[in-house]
Amino acid sequence: MNVRAQSDYCSVVIGLGSMGYGIAESLLNAGLRVWGFDVDPTRETSLRAKGAQPGSRNDAVAQADAVLCVVVNAAQTEDVLFGAEGIADRMMDGAVFVSCATVAPEFARAMSARLAAMGIDYLDAPMSGGSVRASEGRLSMMASGAPGAFDRAAPALDAITETLFRLGDDAGTGSALKVVNQMLAGIHIAAAAEAVTFGMSQGIAPATVLEVISKCAGTSWMFENRVPHIVAGDYTPHSAVDIFVKDLGIVGNVAHAAKFSAPLTAAALQQFVAASGAGFGREDDSAVAKIYARNANLTLPGDEV
Amino acid sequence: MNVRAQSDYCSVVIGLGSMGYGIAESLLNAGLRVWGFDVDPTRETSLRAKGAQPGSRNDAVAQADAVLCVVVNAAQTEDVLFGAEGIADRMMDGAVFVSCATVAPEFARAMSARLAAMGIDYLDAPMSGGSVRASEGRLSMMASGAPGAFDRAAPALDAITETLFRLGDDAGTGSALKVVNQMLAGIHIAAAAEAVTFGMSQGIAPATVLEVISKCAGTSWMFENRVPHIVAGDYTPHSAVDIFVKDLGIVGNVAHAAKFSAPLTAAALQQFVAASGAGFGREDDSAVAKIYARNANLTLPGDEV
Repeated sequence: MNVRAQSDYCSVVIGLGSMGYGIAESLLNAGLRVWGFDVDPTRETSLRAKGAQPGSRNDAVAQADAVLCVVVNAAQTEDVLFGAEGIADRMMDGAVFVSCATVAPEFARAMSARLAAMGIDYLDAPMSGGSVRASEGRLSMMASGAPGAFDRAAPALDAITETLFRLGDDAGTGSALKVVNQMLAGIHIAAAAEAVTFGMSQGIAPATVLEVISKCAGTSWMFENRVPHIVAGDYTPHSAVDIFVKDLGIVGNVAHAAKFSAPLTAAALQQFVAASGAGFGREDDSAVAKIYARNANLTLPGDEV
Repeated sequence: MNVRAQSDYCSVVIGLGSMGYGIAESLLNAGLRVWGFDVDPTRETSLRAKGAQPGSRNDAVAQADAVLCVVVNAAQTEDVLFGAEGIADRMMDGAVFVSCATVAPEFARAMSARLAAMGIDYLDAPMSGGSVRASEGRLSMMASGAPGAFDRAAPALDAITETLFRLGDDAGTGSALKVVNQMLAGIHIAAAAEAVTFGMSQGIAPATVLEVISKCAGTSWMFENRVPHIVAGDYTPHSAVDIFVKDLGIVGNVAHAAKFSAPLTAAALQQFVAASGAGFGREDDSAVAKIYARNANLTLPGDEV
């Protein structure tokens, strides 16, 4: 397969939220030609000021080697491809569509099959790492798809990933691993909130729980990353409560369809649903601690008393 | 306060299970005088072959600077102190009783008060780290108690800990932190089992889940420590299922008493209870995965098929 030289390689990012914008920056930093599109035109303008190409989405997609779709969910992904302004029938023969949203494995398989029939490769490539790592080109990506899809996407993937897990030829495997990761991430955030507030119920300050547990066998990546938000009383969203309402909902649906009983997932999801229902959906996901605190009549750091 | 010189310092370990035996070895390695006692006399004989002192428990306790109680639970701890052969009224004035079992904070406070009335210090000092670290003198200890108790116990604590969290003057605080740690540890083991078997339901091999997730945000200390047991199909107990039936039971009781709602703890506990009920109570705690596998009709590594 011919893959264009780095300086001629055309990459399109659809969805310039915190993750998509960071990805587009990393593609620019790698010297690729980059177009970026978003429902919010100020995001597009901002990216162009950093070196992104001008021009319409239709024109950009028609010359793209890789289209990276960094939208929120399966419905938006399907709309990008096959909606009223869908790009599937505008992409070049042999181009690759890199799907980055967290979706059910079955959805990834369905999209891959529809695109294959049109001569377009699909890379099932959800990611892990947050917006800072996205803009540093240091994401982890759990990717599966045809070898040709990996080859065609390679210049873009090299630019945005620190760790690329290559999980075989079949769409769906990448998404399955991502769903497993989100299951654990969501459980661990809720568990961290449960532990910190439980400690408070025993008279232990959140900062003490953070200091001690982060050096003991009870620690987790999420515990060490999110508990500082609770200790600081700062719920500025890095990733929002509603993201886990969505993602643990996907986990629950996939598990249910497989008749897989997932009681910890279910318990964690209900805590995030409660946090969203109580009005904290757009706060940092660590705000799930507020549900535990309310239910136990505890005053979290930063609470007005 | 006078603390005896290292070579004259007398330490007694009561309970020579995997943790207590390792602690006794570390005390010997530090050059202290050590007595060790267990319901199984072969454990005592074995420790004496490594340099422990001969003599009766009553005689040893009467000259001990520190008695380290490394039994399984609160009932055994209370029996060691105040049972038919109780040592509380045999200990020297000003000696320290170092309580290492995982117990409810309220129990620690009650024991401390009873001993204080007899002129004996109580150190609330549960630990984290496993039997290997115990024998290497590299435990973490979450300790609270009077400053004099820390001073009197210092030669022993120096010999057995890598990290000593000094959590204030009040018995109960150490146990509260330990209970928080066990809450998270138990949830994370059950979550790891839930995630690995859920991955299997999606066609992903346990070894792949281990490889990928351990490098992503979904990882935890317990995930990285226990999932290799599942991948290997080796349930030789490092720490048994029944330990978490006990410890998450303590967490649940303490939470209930504080009217603290702990749904993830409750969900995890029920999975361990099911594992114990199905006959896996003495297997490694990662055997909680067998409940998930049975319920989803999955075949784990090492299963006969």
